[in-house]
Amino acid sequence: AQQFDFSDHSHRRYNPLTDSWILVSPHRAKRPWLGQQEAACKPTSPVYDPKCYLCPGNERATGGQNPKYESTYVFPNDYAAVKIDQPVLPQDDSGKDTLRNRLFKVQSVRGNCFVICFSPKHNLTIPQMKHSDLVHVIDAWQNLYNDLAREARENLKPFKYVQIFENKGTAMGCSNLHPHGQAWCLEAIPSEVSQELKSFGKYKYEHNADLLADYVKLELEEKSRLVLENESFIVVVPYWAVWPFEVMVVSKKKIPSIGQFDQTLKDNLALILKQLTIKYDNLFETSFPYSMGIHQAPLNAKGDELNNSWFHMHFYPPLLRSATVRKFLVGFELLGEPQRDLTPEQAADKLRNLDGKVHYLEKI
Amino acid sequence: AQQFDFSDHSHRRYNPLTDSWILVSPHRAKRPWLGQQEAACKPTSPVYDPKCYLCPGNERATGGQNPKYESTYVFPNDYAAVKIDQPVLPQDDSGKDTLRNRLFKVQSVRGNCFVICFSPKHNLTIPQMKHSDLVHVIDAWQNLYNDLAREARENLKPFKYVQIFENKGTAMGCSNLHPHGQAWCLEAIPSEVSQELKSFGKYKYEHNADLLADYVKLELEEKSRLVLENESFIVVVPYWAVWPFEVMVVSKKKIPSIGQFDQTLKDNLALILKQLTIKYDNLFETSFPYSMGIHQAPLNAKGDELNNSWFHMHFYPPLLRSATVRKFLVGFELLGEPQRDLTPEQAADKLRNLDGKVHYLEKI
Ligand SMILES: O=P(O)(O)O[C@H]1O[C@H](CO)[C@@H](O)[C@H](O)[C@H]1O
Ligand SMILES: O=P(O)(O)O[C@H]1O[C@H](CO)[C@@H](O)[C@H](O)[C@H]1O
Repeated sequence: AQQFDFSDHSHRRYNPLTDSWILVSPHRAKRPWLGQQEAACKPTSPVYDPKCYLCPGNERATGGQNPKYESTYVFPNDYAAVKIDQPVLPQDDSGKDTLRNRLFKVQSVRGNCFVICFSPKHNLTIPQMKHSDLVHVIDAWQNLYNDLAREARENLKPFKYVQIFENKGTAMGCSNLHPHGQAWCLEAIPSEVSQELKSFGKYKYEHNADLLADYVKLELEEKSRLVLENESFIVVVPYWAVWPFEVMVVSKKKIPSIGQFDQTLKDNLALILKQLTIKYDNLFETSFPYSMGIHQAPLNAKGDELNNSWFHMHFYPPLLRSATVRKFLVGFELLGEPQRDLTPEQAADKLRNLDGKVHYLEKI
Repeated sequence: AQQFDFSDHSHRRYNPLTDSWILVSPHRAKRPWLGQQEAACKPTSPVYDPKCYLCPGNERATGGQNPKYESTYVFPNDYAAVKIDQPVLPQDDSGKDTLRNRLFKVQSVRGNCFVICFSPKHNLTIPQMKHSDLVHVIDAWQNLYNDLAREARENLKPFKYVQIFENKGTAMGCSNLHPHGQAWCLEAIPSEVSQELKSFGKYKYEHNADLLADYVKLELEEKSRLVLENESFIVVVPYWAVWPFEVMVVSKKKIPSIGQFDQTLKDNLALILKQLTIKYDNLFETSFPYSMGIHQAPLNAKGDELNNSWFHMHFYPPLLRSATVRKFLVGFELLGEPQRDLTPEQAADKLRNLDGKVHYLEKI
């Protein structure tokens, strides 16, 4: 009888973080593509763009002016998705069994949003940044986390969680190409994060172990999904990856949040992020688009919430076949479940074998 | 004190179907957009395209030839995500507590995928189809559902669920513009569907009522999210909509699947789908992209599975501001939770006030 071949036969894999399944169809990558082509990136964009809202010294979209900043620069988002200054919504606590009370649950959400310009240079992305400058970005994340936690602790602000992320490239909805990330800080724990915390709690209850501790151990044993490793972190294509070249960056030891990072951790995170993003850019010789972000402990977490938290980052890059052909997570994915066209092991293999030291633009 | 204003202040709404939250930030639509522009659709594409794999009489991507079909035409997908002919994966039932058994769950998935050409005409989308031709599409969905159910019942195929869907437009990953939908039939119930069935079951247990029965009643009472209504169906922007102009088409009475549709239901579905898609096209005077699909009872459902099922359709359209500016569900959305820039009531208002009878291309 024929043997089951994971690189040829369709199967579903379970994601224990989100409690959902992914359909893997490794033979599907062969189909012809007459669909949308992404715009290829222009590596020649200038160091300074007089029209950019984020460049040093320029005017911002809502008036006001950027300082002539020379390193990482953090400022409040002019078009924040959440604001501090809004009334609280009174909850209907009557307990009356109306259809509305059954079906419509709503909470007001206050918060603050920040923009983090990685560098004053308009055209400098993470893979091209100097180590010391990349450490400044990580410092900025850490300071933000600690400052927001302090503001919450001192009852100055109702903050509960800060989601730090970057949308890179037009294919991932970036509305300004100046290298920047964001941080949205809310008085609620977002769905994805609270689902993960729930899964970590369940795992601990069932196995008396940390899910990500076990996962790091297993990936270091199996090696087939490992992309990078240093003293403090691993980079893997998760067994349950959805996006073609999705990866997770996971700390080897339990560190609840970036708030606890010492200098070694910051250095090692900068090193591995640079290697990863060089590999990404080298894969299709393009400025590789992605959304990425940090999952970590809620601000001022205590008890189970603190115990279950484990610093990690997710990278969700859309490209599938080339600099211009992406994966669309659409009809079946939205209505049924995510579907992928190559196995996580195949993706990891490609990433592992790419140069992580020299960026393709630096080669002759 | 300031009053809470849903059309100005940020809030989260709960989706009882998926058990997750959505962040609503109604003031965010004001931000400037320097990001990706979608290609505007070309309404002049020809009735017949000699290079199209789906046009009547043409050669298909893998060789073979389409018949000169004159109505809706269903055939097996040449690049199926699931296939019938593959070995079954033996499960490790040893119950051993290894890290692998803890963390890696996997199932083999057999199935079949079909393409449903809506019409022989290369440039005819649903809003432009004649009523009788649109009924043929619905007939095709019904026949497919019933045939696949019969094959499963007779133990000819291991089918459990058929996901019927359409990706329309390049912005939603459609790889061929010839108007067509798909049906992916699997031996597993996809995550989204099984989550909904779980939610319906929970609601019935708690309230001794059908979630969608209560929901239809409430939306007909409140009217603020209602877009269309006829004898058999309503179209609403769900209270918990994620995509800017997302809608649900819900049957007013309990009908588990399209398998049970009589002629009146088929006619009324055709009518309301045509009205909805005319409104969609008229919104930004473009061929409005979306992913849509049917959620319904698993094949040969019995007991609770049958009792909890309620025919409905989801439409997930990406456009936000114009024919070329879409909403990106990226960084915060992927890592935190979905975020939207206008309220469902604002979206419903716009859709309700648009012409649902005359398509903008037919006006002078
Ligand atoms: O089947 P198609 O049209 O080639 O492909 C499209 O729909 C599929 C099902 O939603 C997706 O998996 C693909 O990413 C998308 O491009
Ligand atoms: O904040 P930006 O860069 O203007 O906007 C981008 O990121 C946001 C957060 O992920 C998304 O909600 C927007 O759809 C996207 O275009």
